[in-house]
Amino acid sequence: MLSPLLEQLVQALRCLPGVGPKSAQRMALHLLERNREGAHRLVESLAVALEQVGHCQQCRILTEEDICSLCSDPKRDDTLLCVVGSPADMLAIEQAGSYRGRYFILSGQLSPIDGIGPDEIGIPALASLLEQRRVNELILANNPTVEGEATAYYIANLLQAQDLEVTRIAHGVPMGGELEYVDGSTLSHAFSGRQRLRQ
Amino acid sequence: MLSPLLEQLVQALRCLPGVGPKSAQRMALHLLERNREGAHRLVESLAVALEQVGHCQQCRILTEEDICSLCSDPKRDDTLLCVVGSPADMLAIEQAGSYRGRYFILSGQLSPIDGIGPDEIGIPALASLLEQRRVNELILANNPTVEGEATAYYIANLLQAQDLEVTRIAHGVPMGGELEYVDGSTLSHAFSGRQRLRQ
Repeated sequence: MLSPLLEQLVQALRCLPGVGPKSAQRMALHLLERNREGAHRLVESLAVALEQVGHCQQCRILTEEDICSLCSDPKRDDTLLCVVGSPADMLAIEQAGSYRGRYFILSGQLSPIDGIGPDEIGIPALASLLEQRRVNELILANNPTVEGEATAYYIANLLQAQDLEVTRIAHGVPMGGELEYVDGSTLSHAFSGRQRLRQ
Repeated sequence: MLSPLLEQLVQALRCLPGVGPKSAQRMALHLLERNREGAHRLVESLAVALEQVGHCQQCRILTEEDICSLCSDPKRDDTLLCVVGSPADMLAIEQAGSYRGRYFILSGQLSPIDGIGPDEIGIPALASLLEQRRVNELILANNPTVEGEATAYYIANLLQAQDLEVTRIAHGVPMGGELEYVDGSTLSHAFSGRQRLRQ
């Protein structure tokens, strides 16, 4: 019932994450019926971003500059490097606000079954960055999933000959959570990673 | 933390209905990191739609043609005209598949408190369409909300001098629903609109 151009727009909107056929139709009608100005802005912003936004040459975050603002910030600690699996993970850590070192962003996690090996996620670039910079501690903040754990262990193994401390972020009970609703695997990690309370 | 162009894209994506800051950021990162091809298609489809899609001169549905495919379909019943408040409402009726007449799409419902009067939602265009065409029955399928009811009564009043049957879609218990969960107002409508079972 939709005209061909509208149908095409609905299909195109489905490339957005979490947008199914109903939402896409609602979005298309909303943009054309109620917010053409916003739609024009979206076309322009997306076209400009597609043309100009690439990856930072150092940390590989999405940016329109060669070196992103974080990598060129002299106030960040050069001796700390945090490895994450996606730009969204890095943004989450930045929003938490306690980490003051630098980052390296992998393109996802290792997943041999899907044909995703070290080259695909950018591990060689990480290795060459570590050669150039004097990093004392590499913090592996890969997701606590099977693939994330495997990626963290792969990197730790790869770098064991180097004079470098390699750490993994702690797994345990989330703050504000209730113990009775925490899953068994997280609880096991919380117990095995218990720390002495200093008095 | 996002680069200026990315931040601009996130803001632009928020014009989509139901998209808040978190979803917009997720969409922006997804488009640039994982699906640039889809993003290019989206830019093109949206730009073309914005340029070419307008309103059908008869029913006012969104279409790139002067007269939409439904209005130019000779198989539809010219003597029936159904009034709805948005293109989405019309699509819902078409998907139900039982109505074979034509449509007229208002731009929303009357809402004097927001400064939305008959001219803003297109009632003069409806009146002139009724002058041109020989319609026997006008079916008011405005939403069963306060504004929708008011709009339906306004139209019915406006046309009472004309030789034309004006009807309102039935309000009552939805099919497949359970009576115990139906609200009181709907139940009252279901009782006052009860119909004789033909034997």
